[in-house]
Amino acid sequence: MKYSKFERLMKKIADVNYATAVLMWDQETYMPVKGDALRSQQIATLSGISHELTISNELSDLLNELNNDTTLTENQKINVRETKIALDKKKKFDTEFVMNMSKTISNTFIAWQKAKSENKIELYLPHLEKIIVLKQEEAKILGYKEHIYDALIDQYEPDMTVAVLDKLFIDVKNQLKPLLDNINAQTQVSDACLSQHFDKDAQWKMGLEILKRMGYDFEKGRQDISSHPFTTSFSAEDVRVTTRLDENDLANMVWSCIHEGGHALYEQGLPIAEYAMPLGEAISLGIHESQSRLWENNVGRGFAFWKHNYQLVQDTFPTQFSNVPLEDFYKAMNKVQSSFIRTESDELTYHFHIMIRYEIEKKLIEGSLSTTDLKETWNSMYKEYLGVDIIDDRKGVLQDVHWSHGSFGYFPTYSLGSFYAAQFFDQAKKDIPNLITQIENGDNSNLLQWLRTNIHQYGRKYKANELCKKITGNELELSHFMNYATDKYKAIYGF
Amino acid sequence: MKYSKFERLMKKIADVNYATAVLMWDQETYMPVKGDALRSQQIATLSGISHELTISNELSDLLNELNNDTTLTENQKINVRETKIALDKKKKFDTEFVMNMSKTISNTFIAWQKAKSENKIELYLPHLEKIIVLKQEEAKILGYKEHIYDALIDQYEPDMTVAVLDKLFIDVKNQLKPLLDNINAQTQVSDACLSQHFDKDAQWKMGLEILKRMGYDFEKGRQDISSHPFTTSFSAEDVRVTTRLDENDLANMVWSCIHEGGHALYEQGLPIAEYAMPLGEAISLGIHESQSRLWENNVGRGFAFWKHNYQLVQDTFPTQFSNVPLEDFYKAMNKVQSSFIRTESDELTYHFHIMIRYEIEKKLIEGSLSTTDLKETWNSMYKEYLGVDIIDDRKGVLQDVHWSHGSFGYFPTYSLGSFYAAQFFDQAKKDIPNLITQIENGDNSNLLQWLRTNIHQYGRKYKANELCKKITGNELELSHFMNYATDKYKAIYGF
Repeated sequence: MKYSKFERLMKKIADVNYATAVLMWDQETYMPVKGDALRSQQIATLSGISHELTISNELSDLLNELNNDTTLTENQKINVRETKIALDKKKKFDTEFVMNMSKTISNTFIAWQKAKSENKIELYLPHLEKIIVLKQEEAKILGYKEHIYDALIDQYEPDMTVAVLDKLFIDVKNQLKPLLDNINAQTQVSDACLSQHFDKDAQWKMGLEILKRMGYDFEKGRQDISSHPFTTSFSAEDVRVTTRLDENDLANMVWSCIHEGGHALYEQGLPIAEYAMPLGEAISLGIHESQSRLWENNVGRGFAFWKHNYQLVQDTFPTQFSNVPLEDFYKAMNKVQSSFIRTESDELTYHFHIMIRYEIEKKLIEGSLSTTDLKETWNSMYKEYLGVDIIDDRKGVLQDVHWSHGSFGYFPTYSLGSFYAAQFFDQAKKDIPNLITQIENGDNSNLLQWLRTNIHQYGRKYKANELCKKITGNELELSHFMNYATDKYKAIYGF
Repeated sequence: MKYSKFERLMKKIADVNYATAVLMWDQETYMPVKGDALRSQQIATLSGISHELTISNELSDLLNELNNDTTLTENQKINVRETKIALDKKKKFDTEFVMNMSKTISNTFIAWQKAKSENKIELYLPHLEKIIVLKQEEAKILGYKEHIYDALIDQYEPDMTVAVLDKLFIDVKNQLKPLLDNINAQTQVSDACLSQHFDKDAQWKMGLEILKRMGYDFEKGRQDISSHPFTTSFSAEDVRVTTRLDENDLANMVWSCIHEGGHALYEQGLPIAEYAMPLGEAISLGIHESQSRLWENNVGRGFAFWKHNYQLVQDTFPTQFSNVPLEDFYKAMNKVQSSFIRTESDELTYHFHIMIRYEIEKKLIEGSLSTTDLKETWNSMYKEYLGVDIIDDRKGVLQDVHWSHGSFGYFPTYSLGSFYAAQFFDQAKKDIPNLITQIENGDNSNLLQWLRTNIHQYGRKYKANELCKKITGNELELSHFMNYATDKYKAIYGF
């Protein structure tokens, strides 16, 4: 049967891709230093084999035949349709373009690393310029209706557009900025209790316990150490997270554990029967981020969560916390303060970090901002929205890897994720009686089951906006996030 | 240029094979339990891709053209010749045979696991019977001059034959048995000091230190934990070992560290410039085992080694060893005693374990022994050569995985390795003035350099017997091992 043939080929491709993921996971966690050169070659070879299999006539022919096969089940039709859409996009690029992009990204990444370590932005800009030209070309090849940037964000968040994002970020500016101003006008809370010395082994054990309490299945995953935390999946039955440990910063580990744990719960909840198929995959980066942010922000930064789990913190670090009341710990964990670095920012100022990047990359791609003006624009926007003076590009425009990886259109999905999370969590509270009480009692099982039932089990059956409507009855609305943030921070800062 | 094309294709195949090795390493070390089903599928897919690339017309055509290319360097000619020999063998088997073998092995392995855990040999024998028939067929397809078993051992130890092995094991019997009888007539030494409680973390650190002292390069490798110790290589710049820790047995960890360390030093010493090529690979299993056994037996079980390293043992386990003199520890580590289990046996009785397996598998393959008589033959040979009564097949004929994996001809390479090791070590002592004094002082660097220069750097440039002659002036001779063993155990047991 044709569909079985299609499945076999898709599994072969998935096997190679997941094998590549294992090699990359090992590269970030356990690989000895000198293994790097040949490991990179091995990864490149597997990527090449996967690419060959994907663009083979065999797959195209199967998809063309199956595309008109009316005997397929609804799910089979989705798998065929989504695979065909992805493949048709991929096939628009000739080998020369792909090779050129790959080489340019590789050079830009190296230049970015050097520029960042030596604080010399001028080493980076000429390469960034080349990437932008190529991304513009990519967008034209992919095609778009309204805005050139639409073609790029579509790759991370299908069907998302500049029209929607512009409106969203105007709302963010109009609604979040006044809240921030209000917070800044109050007495600042202290987070000194989080900057003591915290033994790494004890942190490690606490992180594992937090993952366990979230419902992360250690029979289908594990946690390891890497310099940048990430989640990776080799199937829904082997989904791994990493964290990092800083002896002088407890919050860093806690947020990375819960955040990556949220991503991992999504991957562990995808249907294993649809391994290799669109229905076995996450919908979009925005929905993926909604899962990490729901756990990190709506659950993990909540009072209910710490009402149960602060005991674990105190038991793990009695010297550091025995005299710190729960309320003070909770406030410390939720301190709002403008800063330079996106990844270290609180859940409110975070969205200005994203908005700035979104505005800038949109302009770079549409050609209304030149790389020569990049630094000045970055710095003036940080002054305007976050009130900080960037005096070091390493903590400014050079801080993120994304652009040197050619990832334009990626940043907005971070904000989308938080906003989806707030909306989903509001719905979960409606659907699960006493959800907050359950969390206060350390029982996250109904919440996880709700996520499994409403989101995880479907894979890519629905688009992000369809899913949002299906679950909550409405399209994405900022109000959920704003109401959450306003209520919470009014209580914390007392205004 | 044709040779570059050949190199590129070989590298592609090697990249896939080493990626497979990474997946298998992860499976044995870190993979969560439920990851197993899809991991096995991923490994099978990569193996299939490697096989397709290997038997492709592209490789055959390149080899045929290069085989007559007189412009190649000597090393290039070796790489072409050796690749062609291996490929010609591989191409003798049609897909049906390969699939049948693979399926039969898989079933036999499962049956063996069940038979072993339930102590029911009858569950295993019908499957073993099928494997034997297939291995006989395999031998006929491969072809042989004198004995059908020659075709099988040739795959692990090229050019080795029954004629040579029969003679060798007769010598073992005639020379080693009297030595053993002599030892058994003396007062037994005590190894009680090795069966105390040993903290696993402390053992782990000690194992790492021992590897470091051997010269193992941790920038090109690492040690992890697995249920069965092994060495694996993802290139000469990423060679990993594993060990196991038993709280009640220190020797187990020590021997596994040194043994796997010896294998790993060989792999780390192979020329990285010949990655993917025969000249970048180990010669044979026998030579590989010579490297592990030289370090394990000739170095690691020697008095000189412990003269330096016993301090580390005493520092790590002061309670257990502060009252144990070096001499007693040395004797304990070298206690000779007949036993049931090959992998736990001392360096002398070990060869009777091998001899028994060799005799039996040779007869099974030539058809002079039926599987129905296997158990009885096994048990009577253990009685004859080792004087032990097998009352439990799990500690008898069911103990090894090899036959259920279809590995016939593998066992003899274990003994060959020890005998090569003794001969090489004698030569090293001649070539390196004061080698024993150096080892007593903890300096193993000249020995490692000697192995690098005489063995590792050549990859598969020479056959095992050629290399042995080149280094020592002679073919493999049992006398080196016998002299080593006789002198050593006369001193230990005092006769």
